[in-house]
Amino acid sequence: MTVNSKTAVLVAGSWGTAIAAVLADNGHQVMLWSRNEAQVEEINRDRRNSRFLSEAELSPRIRATSSMQEALDQAEAVVVVAPSSAMREVASQMKQHLHERTTVIHATKGFEAGSLKRMTEVLAEELSGYDPKRLAVLSGPSHAEEVIQRRPTTVVVASVDKEAAEKAQDLLITPSFRVYTNPDVVGVEVGGALKNIIALGAGLSDGLGFGDNAKAALLTRGLAEIARLGVAMGANPLTFSGLAGIGDLVVTCTSKHSRNWRAGAMLAQGQTLEEVLDRMGMVVEGVKTTQAAYRLSRQYDITMPIADELYRVLFDGKQPKAAVEDLMERGRTHEMEDLAEPFQSGWAN
Amino acid sequence: MTVNSKTAVLVAGSWGTAIAAVLADNGHQVMLWSRNEAQVEEINRDRRNSRFLSEAELSPRIRATSSMQEALDQAEAVVVVAPSSAMREVASQMKQHLHERTTVIHATKGFEAGSLKRMTEVLAEELSGYDPKRLAVLSGPSHAEEVIQRRPTTVVVASVDKEAAEKAQDLLITPSFRVYTNPDVVGVEVGGALKNIIALGAGLSDGLGFGDNAKAALLTRGLAEIARLGVAMGANPLTFSGLAGIGDLVVTCTSKHSRNWRAGAMLAQGQTLEEVLDRMGMVVEGVKTTQAAYRLSRQYDITMPIADELYRVLFDGKQPKAAVEDLMERGRTHEMEDLAEPFQSGWAN
Repeated sequence: MTVNSKTAVLVAGSWGTAIAAVLADNGHQVMLWSRNEAQVEEINRDRRNSRFLSEAELSPRIRATSSMQEALDQAEAVVVVAPSSAMREVASQMKQHLHERTTVIHATKGFEAGSLKRMTEVLAEELSGYDPKRLAVLSGPSHAEEVIQRRPTTVVVASVDKEAAEKAQDLLITPSFRVYTNPDVVGVEVGGALKNIIALGAGLSDGLGFGDNAKAALLTRGLAEIARLGVAMGANPLTFSGLAGIGDLVVTCTSKHSRNWRAGAMLAQGQTLEEVLDRMGMVVEGVKTTQAAYRLSRQYDITMPIADELYRVLFDGKQPKAAVEDLMERGRTHEMEDLAEPFQSGWAN
Repeated sequence: MTVNSKTAVLVAGSWGTAIAAVLADNGHQVMLWSRNEAQVEEINRDRRNSRFLSEAELSPRIRATSSMQEALDQAEAVVVVAPSSAMREVASQMKQHLHERTTVIHATKGFEAGSLKRMTEVLAEELSGYDPKRLAVLSGPSHAEEVIQRRPTTVVVASVDKEAAEKAQDLLITPSFRVYTNPDVVGVEVGGALKNIIALGAGLSDGLGFGDNAKAALLTRGLAEIARLGVAMGANPLTFSGLAGIGDLVVTCTSKHSRNWRAGAMLAQGQTLEEVLDRMGMVVEGVKTTQAAYRLSRQYDITMPIADELYRVLFDGKQPKAAVEDLMERGRTHEMEDLAEPFQSGWAN
């Protein structure tokens, strides 16, 4: 394992801060970039990021900066953890300071709102001159709050380029942070983005008091519709059985840490979308992703009943209870009709 | 939908009682069979099963009996919910009273301890004269405690015979109890039995305070090893992405109702297997299933690291913490190596 490499993490949210801690645990120097001068100062002075992960004391190997040049200069790798809405702008700022040999890994879950592009597509467009094959994506069941406490966590890093995936793995793997590689960039990005919709739905179901059986059904059917869209977009169906599929879905839908779950539970209690977003004070990726899935399912002609019902609750004022009930009472009754695409399966007749 | 059919449920545990309630909701007469005379008397007198699901008031359509003849006489369908250890004996008692036109559905999760046979295999052997193709199995994420409260639940019914599966579906489907059909009896039985092992492991992990990330990883890798064994035994891999696979695994691993989870959590706190089984006072299928999986994985030459570690904790005195740590630190680092069998997947080189 390389140690004492220079690495950078953009930006200093909770996930960015946790990844910086993993890199520091591995002996690397980490420049944690933030536009917020007060946050930069606090991190460098107090070794703390009080807005995100306020409990954790940060390693002396982590230094914050608001200078993109300082962050990327000589960096062996950079991990981009911007919200999906900020990815294009952050990438455009990276471009002039990025060395072609720096490994670029992103860990953002979501699509670009207008274009519906995946994050590696946005990065490839903005980082002209950088070989897009070498872009990598990190995903999997990984609440930042647990990662920074060194609780056992497993994630997956995908890149079309095997060497880039293994380089990312090498930089990030620690005894408590297991990194698996996978060549399926599309599947890992689609799984990571779309699970937030199902987490919103799980929060709704729990908020309505529907119980564990209903939530398990929602997860199962939700994963099936995510996989259907993913396969249509070019993903390997197996990826959805892995850490970036089932793994991430389970952790997001069943954990008290999930913002998307919390947002769904608040909606179930009768709060409006505006009120929920106001109170959260953080980005709720699932809301924008629901819009993206609604459009993508039409673009690729894929049935996504859960995403559709969520869209109606979020944007058409449908009552959460009616939405969950409509999902439960759908007509389909042969399990393989939904699961088997794109495979063939069933009784002979 | 047929109404007012005569149906039977054997035996009057919590799941049997909940299924009886579903049948009664659907307008059927239900004979609930139990060997325990006091329980029979209580159910008929108080409309209550105080040992299991004591809160629920049972429908007047449910009558208990200790006579197998009375239970099966004229029954259109019988649902067998005996513990796996009692299945052969219950089936042998059924034989002389069973009409060949009665639909036989079982809802038992586990293998026969000595022979490692699936429950439909045991039933087929004992019910000589009954067409084994018409046997059906019911499984899926369905805590009895929620089913009897009419909380939304979805399950799957599998039979090699489509007509038998649809008959079972027709008898059991209600607005709050959705029944999907599936032709894959082996997959549904293997998924339902083996998830109890992973639930034990999840209880261990939670009991050790390892967190949601670790548990999600355990579920993901656990489902992969269940599917590997299932496919070797003749199952359709897709079944493990459905309600009897992921769905049941999620509900069992994340719910406070699960006995297997509770047993794992107690083991993590340092209690011995004997102490745990004593305190539970109910069957913990996952313990026997761990033994079965250990032997089946060798018989079919399938790698099952989670089942192996659990076996060592349960039967070889291995410390739970060491077992979970050993699982986390396995050498494999390319996700598709584990997931891809029996498919081909990965980078070209």
